Amino acid sequence: MNDFPQWMQALGARAEQALEAALPAADTIPHTLHEAMRYAVLGGGKRVRPLLVHAAGEVSGASPEACDAAACAVEMIHAYSLVHDDMPCMDDDDLRRGRPTVHKAYDEATALLVGDALQTQAFVVLAGTPALEPAARLRLVGELAHASGSVGMCGGQAIDLQHVGRGMTLPELEGMHRMKTGALLRASVRMGALCGRIDAAGLEALDRYAAAIGLAFQVVDDILDVTADTATLGKTAGKDAANDKPTYVSLMGLEPARELAGKLRDSAHEALSGFGAQGARLAGLADLIVLRTH
Amino acid sequence: MNDFPQWMQALGARAEQALEAALPAADTIPHTLHEAMRYAVLGGGKRVRPLLVHAAGEVSGASPEACDAAACAVEMIHAYSLVHDDMPCMDDDDLRRGRPTVHKAYDEATALLVGDALQTQAFVVLAGTPALEPAARLRLVGELAHASGSVGMCGGQAIDLQHVGRGMTLPELEGMHRMKTGALLRASVRMGALCGRIDAAGLEALDRYAAAIGLAFQVVDDILDVTADTATLGKTAGKDAANDKPTYVSLMGLEPARELAGKLRDSAHEALSGFGAQGARLAGLADLIVLRTH
Repeated sequence: MNDFPQWMQALGARAEQALEAALPAADTIPHTLHEAMRYAVLGGGKRVRPLLVHAAGEVSGASPEACDAAACAVEMIHAYSLVHDDMPCMDDDDLRRGRPTVHKAYDEATALLVGDALQTQAFVVLAGTPALEPAARLRLVGELAHASGSVGMCGGQAIDLQHVGRGMTLPELEGMHRMKTGALLRASVRMGALCGRIDAAGLEALDRYAAAIGLAFQVVDDILDVTADTATLGKTAGKDAANDKPTYVSLMGLEPARELAGKLRDSAHEALSGFGAQGARLAGLADLIVLRTH
Repeated sequence: MNDFPQWMQALGARAEQALEAALPAADTIPHTLHEAMRYAVLGGGKRVRPLLVHAAGEVSGASPEACDAAACAVEMIHAYSLVHDDMPCMDDDDLRRGRPTVHKAYDEATALLVGDALQTQAFVVLAGTPALEPAARLRLVGELAHASGSVGMCGGQAIDLQHVGRGMTLPELEGMHRMKTGALLRASVRMGALCGRIDAAGLEALDRYAAAIGLAFQVVDDILDVTADTATLGKTAGKDAANDKPTYVSLMGLEPARELAGKLRDSAHEALSGFGAQGARLAGLADLIVLRTH
């Protein structure tokens, strides 16, 4: 699809506008909290998850309007996790998306509350969207909560912390990332599809797609951590090696990690084969995830 | 109602059992996170919010089974807020419910993730309860999210932090507490009622009840902070004065604060007048909130 760059740009702008509208205005009391929530979410980020929501919506015939709430909700959950992960008691990072992290731009207490409130706002948005029937909204709430909680994203983060400075086997690393980043990417795909009509076989194929891109996303992240510089990444490069964190590169080596990323891209494309042209956006996003430089 | 103590004991035990079942088992991976989540929620706490849910359910004819998920969800939100509030970057407290706080018993990173995952788990539980229709579950999700987010509990916490060491007028203090503790107490009452059938006038009366007990709860908290000792409270006494925090006692004096608490109890009883015997449990809880010693 040669209109993929245009689609990405249009949907990225759409997601930004939807997030802008889905966050309380900066002049809503308490001002600082709302200003900091907006700082954490708006004006940055690759919007991979909102794009996945909309691309999966194309598979199930969901309109962009129907997908907006789900796209906002997954991005808010992602943003909250970044704010908390960057805090001194976690990864202690000063830079995110090329700007000071929330606890640096504000303070730690504000960062804690910003993350808490962004998580809540994701559920406010899903519960309140008039574009979907109540039963569909509830299903999205369940998908998002399950994916982001203690057996999903949050649990993966806990496993990651336990292993800093310790060894990890490749299967352990994969299990950790399946929870830490894979679960929310998978939820993005599933939620987008659930904004329209999809059968069990379709959802199962999307799960296979999501498993492949979820893993690929992390493999590429690990590659970029050693090959890209801080300015390109917008976050501190070389951090994993400095922290003695197990990564695909440290466990496999750089070239085998690159080969794995390529194979995962192929798997993602294969999983989409049954969708025909409706799967083209998802295929484009799989390419984007593997070929990205930051 | 002379069977109130028995009802309280039975429903408190019921809430404990429901929470036990609604939290992932301690041997679910990741172990430490789940163990710490259970530590933060189980085996302590007055369970005021679950009791309010069940008592309000009596007003609307909701069975205890129908109320269990809402009771668990509000208590998980309450527990998450305590875990985060106790952290060093917030109130920096070592003691809660007579035991070391989560960041003391474990570490700060675990406490951060425990709070995050408990918030998520509240929505997992609400979205998944088979005891209510999807539309009712979705309504509960909306009520809980709205009450606990940036214009509710979390926003109140942000306002509280902004005012440490600064002055606050009585209306400002009331506005802050209406968000910080009042919103979740109100949600407990509304959610319990929404587990059954209630009309707009009934909900409006319950809102008046909730406003009165929400304020009373905080006035009594402030009174106890200066009159009770740490062993009785199960948390550090005298903390507000030590931190130069504005309280009802510091702004009004002890006796006027006690009178206010009594008046709010009367208002709560008045708001229940239309419910007859169905409102007896809620009336009992208003008494409990005002007359408690810890």
